[in-house]
Amino acid sequence: MFSGGPKPVQGAMKTPVIILANPQIGENIGAAARAMLNFGLTDLRLVNPREAWPNKKAEAMAVGAVSVLESARVFATMEEAIADLGLVFATTGRDRLMAKRVATPDEAVEELVAELAQDRPCGVMFGAERMGLTNDEVILADAILTVPTNPKFASLNLAQSVAVVAYEWFKGTHERPDFKLPVKYRRAALANKEDLIGFFEHIEGELDRTEFLFPVAKRPAMVQNMRNMWHRAALTYQEVQTLRGMVRALTGGKKRRKKDESE
Amino acid sequence: MFSGGPKPVQGAMKTPVIILANPQIGENIGAAARAMLNFGLTDLRLVNPREAWPNKKAEAMAVGAVSVLESARVFATMEEAIADLGLVFATTGRDRLMAKRVATPDEAVEELVAELAQDRPCGVMFGAERMGLTNDEVILADAILTVPTNPKFASLNLAQSVAVVAYEWFKGTHERPDFKLPVKYRRAALANKEDLIGFFEHIEGELDRTEFLFPVAKRPAMVQNMRNMWHRAALTYQEVQTLRGMVRALTGGKKRRKKDESE
Repeated sequence: MFSGGPKPVQGAMKTPVIILANPQIGENIGAAARAMLNFGLTDLRLVNPREAWPNKKAEAMAVGAVSVLESARVFATMEEAIADLGLVFATTGRDRLMAKRVATPDEAVEELVAELAQDRPCGVMFGAERMGLTNDEVILADAILTVPTNPKFASLNLAQSVAVVAYEWFKGTHERPDFKLPVKYRRAALANKEDLIGFFEHIEGELDRTEFLFPVAKRPAMVQNMRNMWHRAALTYQEVQTLRGMVRALTGGKKRRKKDESE
Repeated sequence: MFSGGPKPVQGAMKTPVIILANPQIGENIGAAARAMLNFGLTDLRLVNPREAWPNKKAEAMAVGAVSVLESARVFATMEEAIADLGLVFATTGRDRLMAKRVATPDEAVEELVAELAQDRPCGVMFGAERMGLTNDEVILADAILTVPTNPKFASLNLAQSVAVVAYEWFKGTHERPDFKLPVKYRRAALANKEDLIGFFEHIEGELDRTEFLFPVAKRPAMVQNMRNMWHRAALTYQEVQTLRGMVRALTGGKKRRKKDESE
């Protein structure tokens, strides 16, 4: 669970419609619906799906996102599916050899956010599994959305493609989560320098005694390296006490045993 | 195909290892492999997969990425799978109630790029489908990677999770593709202003003649709106000629017919 909430916008932010053109495989529709809801999208439209609708295989893949499938609307043609939308992107990785603007997912999200902030309905089309969108479908869109991929293996799975666009939508409309742990699990403050230096002197004293810091000419560099290492560990007071206990145990263990017995 | 190539780095950039812990379903391993290769990752390791390996269902889902499956290495334990790696992220969406650093996918990629640029092997772990990584597996990692998701429906499909991380890897290691069309399909230069204004005056003259620009008091605003619209269309010379032909056709059609007959 994240505490990073939505970015402040004027009024309640609408979300873009996801339009799947001629989807062939129920599982892919379900996987797309799951990815949509994972990233806060809920408005799904299907153009002429090959399999009967509603579809059990889609529901099995959607897991907890069945609500997205239940509210999905089915259309006979792309023209009908996008009739009420303004800005529409056509997702395709292939060269279309048409003079249409091409945006990356994050660039497209920026435009969608700007339009939706003014309550203008927008959408993103995705093509059928085998061949993607037809040229006629791409022509209906204002611009092309292309997910940058490995040119040697560019063809994305339909649901993966929806997931990447939905992920960028979520990223573009939410502050970075702050990942704060509940107070009781939150990391304690760093040990203060008196405690830390007390530990340095304790362990270095023991290491001098056992002639680990030898020869003398190398001692300053060895101490410096060790102190840098301890600093890097960003120790808390409790961790410093634990380390001192470990050193005492390793150098005879009397004190810890004595303490335990006295308890 | 993109002309946006890899970002310049010193030497050949290694890629992070993707480690799937106890994957349950062959199809998910195949889908993860496909997403990996889509975004330039090839090094897959499996810890104790539930189904027999190699796996036909994984191969069917991988489509053109079977090479990733063929070169995948199988390990009995996570400890063995990450033995040769330095920086390792554990991907999880659940609160782990442990004082471990948490990074978003793009932040993690930035760290992976920095390490890999110095030829230090790195990896990202992903947990089993139902429950994700165990706490013992997370503890083996240097930091947590969390894909920001809808807090009301946070659980990502395994392959989707791999896809998002791989997508950020590709994005973080490649320049933005420049989407340039081959020269013969590239959009021609804008019409120059003389041609454009010639068209404006032509169509406005015809609209005056048919009393469309009426009443006179509103003419300047109507003309201004139309000219703004034509400018927004970013017309080429050829498009201006086409529009002039359309106006001639709509106002009698003599000239176009005459031209056709003379050819």
